[in-house]
Amino acid sequence: MKSWKRVEPTIVSKVGYRQVVSKSFVMPDGVTKHFETVNGEGSRAAVVLPITTEGKVIVCRQYRPGPAMIMDELPGGGVADGETLEDGARRELLEETGYEPGKLIYLGVIHYDSYDNLERHCFLATGCKQSKNFAPKDAEEFIELRLITITELLAVARAGKMTDPGAVLLAYDKLKELEGKQ
Amino acid sequence: MKSWKRVEPTIVSKVGYRQVVSKSFVMPDGVTKHFETVNGEGSRAAVVLPITTEGKVIVCRQYRPGPAMIMDELPGGGVADGETLEDGARRELLEETGYEPGKLIYLGVIHYDSYDNLERHCFLATGCKQSKNFAPKDAEEFIELRLITITELLAVARAGKMTDPGAVLLAYDKLKELEGKQ
Repeated sequence: MKSWKRVEPTIVSKVGYRQVVSKSFVMPDGVTKHFETVNGEGSRAAVVLPITTEGKVIVCRQYRPGPAMIMDELPGGGVADGETLEDGARRELLEETGYEPGKLIYLGVIHYDSYDNLERHCFLATGCKQSKNFAPKDAEEFIELRLITITELLAVARAGKMTDPGAVLLAYDKLKELEGKQ
Repeated sequence: MKSWKRVEPTIVSKVGYRQVVSKSFVMPDGVTKHFETVNGEGSRAAVVLPITTEGKVIVCRQYRPGPAMIMDELPGGGVADGETLEDGARRELLEETGYEPGKLIYLGVIHYDSYDNLERHCFLATGCKQSKNFAPKDAEEFIELRLITITELLAVARAGKMTDPGAVLLAYDKLKELEGKQ
């Protein structure tokens, strides 16, 4: 199977802060088609599945505007150009939870949607400890920190009450192993 | 924790066929904020993880414009207003693969992104057989059907080479059970 051949035009539109990138391809039958994709090309996000030294998973309970419900989220967010994925993961974890990882393990990259350009890079952070000199911006971001068991995390992810469930999938076997020890 | 209070205005914009919905909320601190979310409110998709009578998983290898790579996809797509999720799942499975399920098991709904309105409803389809009177629209949709083992499916999903990995997460324990029997 061959990749489709990317051709001009590429048209980048913005609706508020949301970017829509119209990409054009010559399809295998020779016809050129246009596709509206979301998020900027080359954009990257880091998603962190953080486990404390006590074996609890840190999730950020917050209301989410798309699904329009309260969800237990994994910390994460956009990684800036020039920032490494690891630095982005550490920064998002610290900003949203006030925790720092003992060890940061790269799980892989995941794509959820055929028309989304964003690369979502997932990390498992073990041995997380509260940073001494940092208070998360709870008041600003309206996040309620929760420490839950791995069994609870798996239940939340499977109940569809968490965005970025890809990190749970990538860490699944490791999580089951850790769950067995709890 | 309280939900944010939804207020007007809601502004629906279109870029090509892509819908962006600007939603407004009064945040817990009393400030009104606007969020640009993608996909129409109330929009639904069905994603099917199909397993044949021989225990093979049916995936649709195709080039995907967002991630810009060839991926092994699960069949699925938008469910129309007035169509049931089950009917949408059967239709998408038939259209993309030419297979019909023996049994269709609802796995649950998943949300990948905090700013995406689309509800993705996942199904496990067991005992799938080729329909006698239907040829999939391969030529039109440029799909190469592949029959892979459950072990291969898990590897593909964990390698980030499949969109809609949520269905794999929701079916994980069942898949491991079936894998053990193969």
